Amino acid sequence: MHMGAFIEEMERLAPPDLAEEFDAGKIGLVVEGKTDIVRVCCALDATPFVVHQAVAASADVLVVHHTPIWTPLTALTGRTAGLMRDLLSAQMNLYVMHTNFDRAAEGVNDALAELLSLTDTEPIASGLIGTCTLSPAEISRRLGGNLRLWGEMKTCNRLAIVAGSGFDPALIEEAQHRGADAFLSAEMKHQVARLSPLPCIEASHYSLEAPAMQRLARRKGWMYVDDPPLLQIIP
Amino acid sequence: MHMGAFIEEMERLAPPDLAEEFDAGKIGLVVEGKTDIVRVCCALDATPFVVHQAVAASADVLVVHHTPIWTPLTALTGRTAGLMRDLLSAQMNLYVMHTNFDRAAEGVNDALAELLSLTDTEPIASGLIGTCTLSPAEISRRLGGNLRLWGEMKTCNRLAIVAGSGFDPALIEEAQHRGADAFLSAEMKHQVARLSPLPCIEASHYSLEAPAMQRLARRKGWMYVDDPPLLQIIP
Amino acid sequence: MHMGAFIEEMERLAPPDLAEEFDAGKIGLVVEGKTDIVRVCCALDATPFVVHQAVAASADVLVVHHTPIWTPLTALTGRTAGLMRDLLSAQMNLYVMHTNFDRAAEGVNDALAELLSLTDTEPIASGLIGTCTLSPAEISRRLGGNLRLWGEMKTCNRLAIVAGSGFDPALIEEAQHRGADAFLSAEMKHQVARLSPLPCIEASHYSLEAPAMQRLARRKGWMYVDDPPLLQIIP
Amino acid sequence: MHMGAFIEEMERLAPPDLAEEFDAGKIGLVVEGKTDIVRVCCALDATPFVVHQAVAASADVLVVHHTPIWTPLTALTGRTAGLMRDLLSAQMNLYVMHTNFDRAAEGVNDALAELLSLTDTEPIASGLIGTCTLSPAEISRRLGGNLRLWGEMKTCNRLAIVAGSGFDPALIEEAQHRGADAFLSAEMKHQVARLSPLPCIEASHYSLEAPAMQRLARRKGWMYVDDPPLLQIIP
Amino acid sequence: MHMGAFIEEMERLAPPDLAEEFDAGKIGLVVEGKTDIVRVCCALDATPFVVHQAVAASADVLVVHHTPIWTPLTALTGRTAGLMRDLLSAQMNLYVMHTNFDRAAEGVNDALAELLSLTDTEPIASGLIGTCTLSPAEISRRLGGNLRLWGEMKTCNRLAIVAGSGFDPALIEEAQHRGADAFLSAEMKHQVARLSPLPCIEASHYSLEAPAMQRLARRKGWMYVDDPPLLQIIP
Amino acid sequence: MHMGAFIEEMERLAPPDLAEEFDAGKIGLVVEGKTDIVRVCCALDATPFVVHQAVAASADVLVVHHTPIWTPLTALTGRTAGLMRDLLSAQMNLYVMHTNFDRAAEGVNDALAELLSLTDTEPIASGLIGTCTLSPAEISRRLGGNLRLWGEMKTCNRLAIVAGSGFDPALIEEAQHRGADAFLSAEMKHQVARLSPLPCIEASHYSLEAPAMQRLARRKGWMYVDDPPLLQIIP
Repeated sequence: MHMGAFIEEMERLAPPDLAEEFDAGKIGLVVEGKTDIVRVCCALDATPFVVHQAVAASADVLVVHHTPIWTPLTALTGRTAGLMRDLLSAQMNLYVMHTNFDRAAEGVNDALAELLSLTDTEPIASGLIGTCTLSPAEISRRLGGNLRLWGEMKTCNRLAIVAGSGFDPALIEEAQHRGADAFLSAEMKHQVARLSPLPCIEASHYSLEAPAMQRLARRKGWMYVDDPPLLQIIP
Repeated sequence: MHMGAFIEEMERLAPPDLAEEFDAGKIGLVVEGKTDIVRVCCALDATPFVVHQAVAASADVLVVHHTPIWTPLTALTGRTAGLMRDLLSAQMNLYVMHTNFDRAAEGVNDALAELLSLTDTEPIASGLIGTCTLSPAEISRRLGGNLRLWGEMKTCNRLAIVAGSGFDPALIEEAQHRGADAFLSAEMKHQVARLSPLPCIEASHYSLEAPAMQRLARRKGWMYVDDPPLLQIIP
Repeated sequence: MHMGAFIEEMERLAPPDLAEEFDAGKIGLVVEGKTDIVRVCCALDATPFVVHQAVAASADVLVVHHTPIWTPLTALTGRTAGLMRDLLSAQMNLYVMHTNFDRAAEGVNDALAELLSLTDTEPIASGLIGTCTLSPAEISRRLGGNLRLWGEMKTCNRLAIVAGSGFDPALIEEAQHRGADAFLSAEMKHQVARLSPLPCIEASHYSLEAPAMQRLARRKGWMYVDDPPLLQIIP
Repeated sequence: MHMGAFIEEMERLAPPDLAEEFDAGKIGLVVEGKTDIVRVCCALDATPFVVHQAVAASADVLVVHHTPIWTPLTALTGRTAGLMRDLLSAQMNLYVMHTNFDRAAEGVNDALAELLSLTDTEPIASGLIGTCTLSPAEISRRLGGNLRLWGEMKTCNRLAIVAGSGFDPALIEEAQHRGADAFLSAEMKHQVARLSPLPCIEASHYSLEAPAMQRLARRKGWMYVDDPPLLQIIP
Repeated sequence: MHMGAFIEEMERLAPPDLAEEFDAGKIGLVVEGKTDIVRVCCALDATPFVVHQAVAASADVLVVHHTPIWTPLTALTGRTAGLMRDLLSAQMNLYVMHTNFDRAAEGVNDALAELLSLTDTEPIASGLIGTCTLSPAEISRRLGGNLRLWGEMKTCNRLAIVAGSGFDPALIEEAQHRGADAFLSAEMKHQVARLSPLPCIEASHYSLEAPAMQRLARRKGWMYVDDPPLLQIIP
Repeated sequence: MHMGAFIEEMERLAPPDLAEEFDAGKIGLVVEGKTDIVRVCCALDATPFVVHQAVAASADVLVVHHTPIWTPLTALTGRTAGLMRDLLSAQMNLYVMHTNFDRAAEGVNDALAELLSLTDTEPIASGLIGTCTLSPAEISRRLGGNLRLWGEMKTCNRLAIVAGSGFDPALIEEAQHRGADAFLSAEMKHQVARLSPLPCIEASHYSLEAPAMQRLARRKGWMYVDDPPLLQIIP
């Protein structure tokens, strides 16, 4: 397959114009490699481990959710130089789908909803709300365990989910108005927790977004490279 | 005691010019009440519960770390109207010490170091590094339990601490250069954890900063009002 | 009456989307009090005198033209603390209609036109033009006396009026093109007077805008609290 | 006299580096004419009348307080084209001293103080405070009559004066702290009058600043061209 | 002819709303003179020589491509004072057509295309592409000689032309995609030449734009004043 | 030699704090390669040809004057991807000295002065002035020929030179005041040539700056890779 055709396919999957403005120039083809594509790898982040695995697998494209060049750069040094050397030397393409994939049908939030068996879902600004019949312990198990619960959760019939860093006061308020009993996302801040009208379940950023990349790889027949951050509770 | 004299005393304790620029207009006397001061209460945040306790105790001043008017406002409605009504009706003064107290001698970081029995401390940008002989489990116990550990921690002889939200890549790098084996703070982000050259211990914002307000109250003979956010692990 | 219903009624009277952009966040419910509304007071400004009168009259809402919190604030001290204490302690709502009321039908400019018995009116940018049969002395009498006249006024058949601070060169030019013989507003500046192609009549800001609040009170059966600034001529 | 020497003399009188930043590029030689200087005229503003008088008097330089090109321009049309045609055709230089002359020794505020016979003067930010033994009526007489008095003036022993448009809340507060009983300036605004802790005397901008230009002309032996705006009271 | 009618005629020729945003306030009537128009002169720039010639010819309007007041000014001194004195004293109007004339039908690029006998032209962003049968030497001859050629030009069937300063990387790339074999414009920069995918022919700014003014003068029966900059090659 | 030591040596040669602000992040180590340094290449620009020659020569460092990453980038595609692939794959360091080298002793302007045998040199803002005894034809010969001369040059005893793109009106005026008879630089613009009080000699950017890199290579014993842009005159 030609890389141009691959890009077209990806853009159907996650249309670039769905992306937030801050993603301008940071999605799509971020590192350009060879033009003939046979093997594709997929991961959440382009970490050194992920890139090594992709090189070892002779991948022609690596598809990730987070660009490794977030801050515009005028020099390639240190860790970035190493990463770019590995990608460019192998002529591997790096393709990024970020907020456009969050919002795409069958995208990041949909994959998370599927993982948590949500039903009767409806969209909210950057996520969705659905009926959840899982116990908190089961939610935790499916998300890798050791979630943090802010506030007191009684029953949770309707659960709002926002994959990624979604604990925004306006979003939580929107979820409450739309009938949510709890709000699941990552990267809670003290002041937001203080003022939240809903109990908040905090998972890791990785555990909320990786399922979508994993599911994408499964559907496409690509190799998925798992590289969760090491995270444990000290009781 | 006259409120003017009280303010002078507080400014000796936490000089306003130690504060970050973003604190301009957000520290010092944030709500003006009566001028004769007898009773003082102290807390981390001016939550509704804290203000009610202070009113019940007939406090003339409430000293807190976080201002309840962070975003400049042109209207007093909802939760803010309620809080301001309680303070103003009681003619209670609200006095805020924020980043100026973080950096003050005997301030927020010093209190945290004391709580963790750090020795041989030396300052870094927004915190300090000290020798720590506590086990991770004991650190967790003293900070209210259930810490999150990002990365792999082998031995931790020298521990960097930054009370509040201090997981900044430049800070962590500084700590590493200064010999730290681990970095303790609050509000970790995925990308920061990914790139951290040190293992990171994440406690709650409250557990890192409340000790300083508690110690201040103890030394001054003020009433301390504890109001930690509800936080638990779902294993 | 419920405060929500009262707000809806006010928004019909002076639709918020008629307001200038600089009024964003500074009109509507500026201080939130009780929800059951019986008595309403009305004034041009929320001065201490006006608030005291409204409290004495057990008003549940005070409707004014100028917000007392123009500059966004991060602290309630001094005069503002006193004003907010009086309002919040009494659980009195403060409701502001500013440029949206200037432009509303039956709003500030219409009330001024009525006071000056203008006929055949047509709108200009922030005010209107109408046929005026009053003598300058009678105009002055109706506006509290002692107007200042800049330039030479011969006959004044068509008079442009802009309630508030409206001596803007572009506005005056517009008025001239539309056939005005003179321009009435408040707060003249030297350079504007110098270049004005029309004679300008300068009244006080208060005398031009208070009539609208007074008329509103009369129509609604509210109490109007008059509090003009002290202004006299030293001949 | 050579124009270069004339400019040096003027810069000694009103050093350009005393000027406010907003005057950058708007003081000094604003229109360049001939280089040999014999006759000089002086006025407050470069109005068409003033320029005609200066041309009629065969002046080689016209010295004014207010530049006629305040807003930077990319076209010479209308009134400005006419004014520049008159100046350039006559090869007349136009020299402007603005905030640098306000602040100069023997400058605008000093001339006003002299006119009002103030004694024991001390400087404040943009003006000065002095002991005033004149009655309000006499002050008015010396400033062309028909002043406006905002607030209630009891005795006025110490008078603050700021020539030009000086009714700034911070300035008035400074004057009060320095012992002023009243504040004299031009171009009052409603909100400023409302909050002023001092009674305010409002004269016209012209009457406060013209005396300095007149005195300068007298001392230098230049012709002074008087062109006050037409201003009268409609009682 | 009345100047108003002349302006209308010019605006039909080069509609102001075709102009780039940076031309706002810098086209149209830039210096206002007399209202009755008999003689018109035309040139590329309003240089002192051009204005002298126009004055000598008793022109009532001078039409140029480049405004002499590009940077907004607050003073008329030096060379600008001299130029404005000449124009204003003669009551000559100065009328500017810039990017609106570049883009007008029969405008700057069209005149250049005609001069180079281009056929089958199609527009690109700020210029056009056409079939060129002239030899490079003949192109040079028609443009005053001594062109600079950047890169290697083999055959040039389709030539892109952008009158003025048009060597912009995005434009050159657009021209290449549209089939151009070479790109003709003025004011080349090293980095642009380095990265250009097309050979670039650099003429002088004057030689590319003057033909349009000359042709305009010829068609209208105006006097054209030629004033090319002195430019020669040192071999 | 260790790369760290090499960088120290380069920083002594061209201290980074001599650079213009716009060079922040764009000088020094721009692409990081191996740490042991044996062979060094040197050129003006990091063009594909230059990089290929450096790779062929097994260089460990390539020292250039112009960074290939001027605009901060968030993606490595097209030409930049190719260039970075070549550099990173070869583990070659790319080191940039720009405006810091222009201003360094023995830097870009000094090398140009030497090439033109200037004597009695004195510095001006971004270049220098010196006595020149060469004929224009000889200057042209030493700079690769075919210079463009703007204006009329009579005798040229004192020549101002600014390597790079230095035809700035303020600089030319400074040179005139300092006694220069002509001004040599690159990348002339029409408006600048129009207003220049001095005759201007325009060479190519490359011919003015390459001599410094060549001389540096010669002194250090590095290989110099010459890659001038193709530039010829069409008479």
